[in-house]
Amino acid sequence: MTQPLVPDERRPANGGPKAAARNRTALIAAAREIYAAYGLDAPLSAIARRAGVGQGVLYRHFPDRAALAGAVLDENVRQIEQAAAARDALFTDVLGVLTWHVTESAAFLGLLHAGGAVGRSEALVYALGLSERVERALRDLLPKGHRLGAGNDLMLAVAMVSGAVAGPTREDRERRALDAWRLLGVEVGPVRPFGG
Amino acid sequence: MTQPLVPDERRPANGGPKAAARNRTALIAAAREIYAAYGLDAPLSAIARRAGVGQGVLYRHFPDRAALAGAVLDENVRQIEQAAAARDALFTDVLGVLTWHVTESAAFLGLLHAGGAVGRSEALVYALGLSERVERALRDLLPKGHRLGAGNDLMLAVAMVSGAVAGPTREDRERRALDAWRLLGVEVGPVRPFGG
Repeated sequence: MTQPLVPDERRPANGGPKAAARNRTALIAAAREIYAAYGLDAPLSAIARRAGVGQGVLYRHFPDRAALAGAVLDENVRQIEQAAAARDALFTDVLGVLTWHVTESAAFLGLLHAGGAVGRSEALVYALGLSERVERALRDLLPKGHRLGAGNDLMLAVAMVSGAVAGPTREDRERRALDAWRLLGVEVGPVRPFGG
Repeated sequence: MTQPLVPDERRPANGGPKAAARNRTALIAAAREIYAAYGLDAPLSAIARRAGVGQGVLYRHFPDRAALAGAVLDENVRQIEQAAAARDALFTDVLGVLTWHVTESAAFLGLLHAGGAVGRSEALVYALGLSERVERALRDLLPKGHRLGAGNDLMLAVAMVSGAVAGPTREDRERRALDAWRLLGVEVGPVRPFGG
């Protein structure tokens, strides 16, 4: 057998920029699902397969694991920001969207624990930046006199709920998260993705 | 150069069973410190060095990483059980000892998140067994009508506090843990090791 002259990884994407954008979106969605099921160490080949693209396409968009995980996180944070920016957004609604992401996305869970990471400082700085965006989105809507209004209590509560989220299915994790909010005495809106 | 006929790892411990017990204790104490500083992935050679023994001695006592981490966890759990079994033990005191271990030991932190682990089922079963011992120790002392008395709230709260624990120093982590207990409205005794 002969090797192809140009390895698959180096060929330009078929279909131009539109297909490239479509592939990127599909890869992020696939990564989100695979991470949720298998954790952040899931093989990249599984993600490419789920997205219906070759591994070469995956590497063209995301040169390493961190880049792909970062894109998924960024998308999670963007949804929370959009929920917060929606007309008549309520704090409880945004907490519900946040809780959805916490229960749905293993990667996002890790992000909200980022304060505890030791080493790997570049990833940490990135994660802290995303975490601050989540805090800003929530804080803007925090009602006056809310029980999480003081000091760092808002993001502490988010870390506590994230820390308590565990279980084999998303539904198990949602039940744990809602129990945790209840223990904190904090009201949460429907647990669902923004626009979902 | 000639190789020794019997590699260091296979030679019996010098000094007999007493020295062996001393080495084991030193290795567990060293592992606890190294884990706290560098996480569970810290090189075993650093642990042997801190304990003042050769790597061969380490491997004789703990054939792999999991065995050593398991021994550290077991020792943490035993201290909580001893605190709970002490004469006139109070729930708040035992929570203080638990909080000490949570802020001091990266390994122990991971244990209390064990419910969320995916895969590695043998380690998970082991961790859940230890987690149940912690629950039993605490539950026996839970005052009637305590805010964490219902259903699974006790270990949920422990997971929430563990999940919120983050920070570069033990003091930072203790501050976070105490803030988390405060948010939960749960009184905690002095944060210290049992007998410390």
